[in-house]
Formats: sequence, C-alpha cells, structure tokens
Amino acid sequence: MKIIRNISSMQKYSLKCRDKKKIGFVPTMGYLHEGHLSLIKRARKENDIVVLSIFVNPIQFGPKEDFEKYPRDFKRDERMSKSAGADIIFYPSWKDMYPEGYKTYLEVKDLQDHLCGRSRPGHFKGVATVVAKLFNIVQPFNAYFGQKDAQQCIIIKQMTRDLNIPVNIKVLETFRESDGLAMSSRNSYLLPKERKAALVVSRTLLAIKKNILSGERNINLLSVKANKLIKKEPLARLDYFSFADENTLEKITKLSGNVLVSAAVWIGKTRLIDNFRIGIK
Amino acid sequence: MKIIRNISSMQKYSLKCRDKKKIGFVPTMGYLHEGHLSLIKRARKENDIVVLSIFVNPIQFGPKEDFEKYPRDFKRDERMSKSAGADIIFYPSWKDMYPEGYKTYLEVKDLQDHLCGRSRPGHFKGVATVVAKLFNIVQPFNAYFGQKDAQQCIIIKQMTRDLNIPVNIKVLETFRESDGLAMSSRNSYLLPKERKAALVVSRTLLAIKKNILSGERNINLLSVKANKLIKKEPLARLDYFSFADENTLEKITKLSGNVLVSAAVWIGKTRLIDNFRIGIK
Repeated sequence: MKIIRNISSMQKYSLKCRDKKKIGFVPTMGYLHEGHLSLIKRARKENDIVVLSIFVNPIQFGPKEDFEKYPRDFKRDERMSKSAGADIIFYPSWKDMYPEGYKTYLEVKDLQDHLCGRSRPGHFKGVATVVAKLFNIVQPFNAYFGQKDAQQCIIIKQMTRDLNIPVNIKVLETFRESDGLAMSSRNSYLLPKERKAALVVSRTLLAIKKNILSGERNINLLSVKANKLIKKEPLARLDYFSFADENTLEKITKLSGNVLVSAAVWIGKTRLIDNFRIGIK
Repeated sequence: MKIIRNISSMQKYSLKCRDKKKIGFVPTMGYLHEGHLSLIKRARKENDIVVLSIFVNPIQFGPKEDFEKYPRDFKRDERMSKSAGADIIFYPSWKDMYPEGYKTYLEVKDLQDHLCGRSRPGHFKGVATVVAKLFNIVQPFNAYFGQKDAQQCIIIKQMTRDLNIPVNIKVLETFRESDGLAMSSRNSYLLPKERKAALVVSRTLLAIKKNILSGERNINLLSVKANKLIKKEPLARLDYFSFADENTLEKITKLSGNVLVSAAVWIGKTRLIDNFRIGIK
C-alpha cells in the first residue's frame, strides 16, 4: 500500500491510470471504523485500484466545533485500510488543500439548509467543496459513502449530477455496533455512561420505524413519541428529529413516498446522528 | 465537423478519448467573431481534438440583462468554426444544462465582487458554475479564453487552481477591429453612430496606457483624465474605470506590480468592456 501526501503526485498518478483502470474512492476523515472498512471492501470488489483519502476538512467545521479535537490516528488507519484492501492512502495537508488565497466554494442550494445544515451553518458548503476537490484529484470511477451521513450523501449525489461530474456515487448501509449504535469516529468521545445513553438514538429510530411499519401514519403522533423517548434519557438533548422528503429534504406533513427519518442528538458534548429510509405507498 | 447537442453523448465521447488525445476546448456563447476564431485556431495548433461549445448561459445574466436578445446565429457559427478548424461543436440546450431541481453553484470569493461583479451581481457565480460543468462534460486538456474578459479569466484560473481541476487555462490577447474597438458579440447591438462612439473605450485605455508608459504614476490624475475623455463622448456613460491589482482585483492606490487597467462603458443600451495589463517596476 502506498501513502501519497502530495496533491499533484496523487493527481498525476490518477490521470495516468484513470482510463486503463477503474479507480474506486473512499473519502474519509480518518479514525476508521468498521463502517469505513465496509466501504473499502466494497470498493475493492468493484474497482481495479482503491484509493482512500484521510483528510479532516477544516472548512466543514464551525468555529465552535470539534476540528481540533477530532480523533486522529494515522498508524492505526494505515493498518486497518491495508487489511481491508486499499492500494493508496491519499493524506494531504490542509495547507496544501487550502493554500493562502484560497477562494472557491460550492453550494448545493436548499438541500444544504435543512437538518444538520440548520445546526451547522456552512457545513455542507465545506463538504461539497472538499468532495469536488478530491474527485478532481483522485479521478475516481466510483466513490463510496455511508448512509449514516444521509444528508451528505444526498447533497453529493445532487452536486455530482448538477455539475456533470463523471463519478458514480455509491451509498452503503449504515454499519452498527452489536447493540445498534451507528458507527462514527465521534463515538470515541463518549464516556462509558454516555456510550450507554447514546443508544437512545438508534432505539428511538427503530421504535418509530416499527410504528410506521405497523401502520401508524400520523407524523405528529410519531414526533411526540420520538421526543418523549429521547427525553427519557437524561444525558441526551435533542437537536432535531425529522421526517423529510428524501429528494428535497423538506419537512413533510404527510407520510408518503420516499421518506428520510433522521435524528441528531447531543450526548454530553458529542453530537450524534442516525437515520433510516422508508418507502411508503 | 460534428455537432453534439446531448450532454451525455458529448461526455461519453470525451471520456473515451481524453487520455489518448489532447482535447482543446473553446467555450463561447456563440455569435462568433475573429476573437473566438483566434482561440479556435490556437486550440487547433496545440491539441488533437478541438471542441467549441456554444451556450448562452442563462444563469450569468441578471434579470434585467440581455439574455433574451443576446445575438444567436448557429448556421453562421457552424460555418465559421468549421473554417477555423473545430472538430466538434457542443451545443446543449439550457433545459439540459439546468434541469428542473438544479441546485449547485460555485463562487470565487472576493474576485467575483469587484469590477463587473459590482455592476452585475451573480454574474461570475453563473460563469464559474457553467465553466465547471463544461469542463466536466468536455474533459479538456487545454481551455482557451480571451483577455477582453479579464476578470472572467482571472476567476476561472483561480477556480481551476482552487478545485484542482486538471485543465490548463490559456488566455489569448484581445482581438480588435482595425480602428481599435475590442471585438465582442455585443458590438452587433450598436447603431452606426454608437459604433463610432464606442471607440471612446479603447481610445481612452490607450491614452492612459501611453501616459503610464511615459512615466505618469499618479492614479488620481490618470482617473480624472480617463473620466474626462469618456465624458467628452455624449453617447457614452461610464460604469467604471479601474486600476486594480491583477491578482486580487482590488483597487490600488499606487501604480506598482502587475496592474489591470479596465473599463466598462455604456454606449446607449449596450455595455462594453475593455482592458490592458501593465507591469510596473
């Protein structure tokens, strides 16, 4: 496995082989978990070359967010991605990605303003911008993302389609701990009692999913129930619990079509997200 | 010469040959003039395949601007680009370029707000967005632009560098009519007496350039002179006459380094632009 830090070396490599070999790309912020590894393994099956990027992207963090303390462990990431089958780790510095005088930003209107965009203004502008840059550098045929970041996936799909970027976006199921907690690098922030409390997120989503599957269609009732379930957990503070149209991410008042049910919950100082998709006839 | 209207046909073609052959790209809004042809001819010399795009980009026009009346003559453009050596005209519809639900926009901070950006809010966002799309569709090795649109060239260079787009941006000298008027598709709007009046733009810029070359360094004096010269022409109304740093496009108060001297002038209902670059030790 090769480690490439230099942007232009990575791009030269990609430009040289992009049309002879399929490049599969897994962009990450590092501190890998099984969810990331499942993306790498899928990329390994579907492509000739697998590139993983590790880049904690400063412009997608707000000024009061956790950019500084975001967990980093390159040696561990290196071992894990090698064993999962990556060929290259692209590991640029933020000074090379955003040199002095950097000025260009992407935005995906409307989609960026809902859900996490409301609590994290500017976040998805940062995400869209870095993904566009990484796609240009790595020149992938396929790129892999996890469903846990549902809004991110929808925004990246829209951006890719809108800008005619010739990359297939593949979204893989959320990977969970055995007790149901969605895997996230941020889970490492959780103290032991917070780790237990964090279960409230997946448990509440699952309860709501079961309610819908057994025929409940009243969004108000479902919302009240979700709020109650989360309030029961004293360490949890709800950011949002949302029923949205999966295409527009707009709040829905009637359960129909493709629906994204998603939640963001603070457990102490850690903000966790999770979701499920459901098609309703 | 081939004419391709369908976006995905154009992209498939480009993806198939981009790494075997160099694609040279000349993006235009059509109604070609000698300036465009000089770009095509240069592209012909430096590449294996020359693609010209003709697309009057609605999102770079303000609501009160001339999108509707912008001159169009595809048959004429076809003849001219064939004779200049183009292999392909890419001629998409705006409904295909911006389908319903389109949401993604690029912006190049700071640079987009000066000069023409001040008089045409949103203009360069539209330019940056369409050029990013066209680059993704056409997959060029080299792309050609005219120095007449100085700010556009600077913004596209910055965007290409910032987003790591693997395209070389080449800027060619402004092409002029024999009397000095910078060529522009919008010159076709000018009535005969306006056509004469329009000369005030290049004449004023040339006078200022001569002044600087003979040692004048006082920007206030030069500005006053430029304003006077333009006022002398009763059909002209000055939008701006600017001395700016060529890298940041910020207004300068001292003549030094690489300077962009540029003007935008209304002649009747037609807005014309022109400029020159000068390096001052």
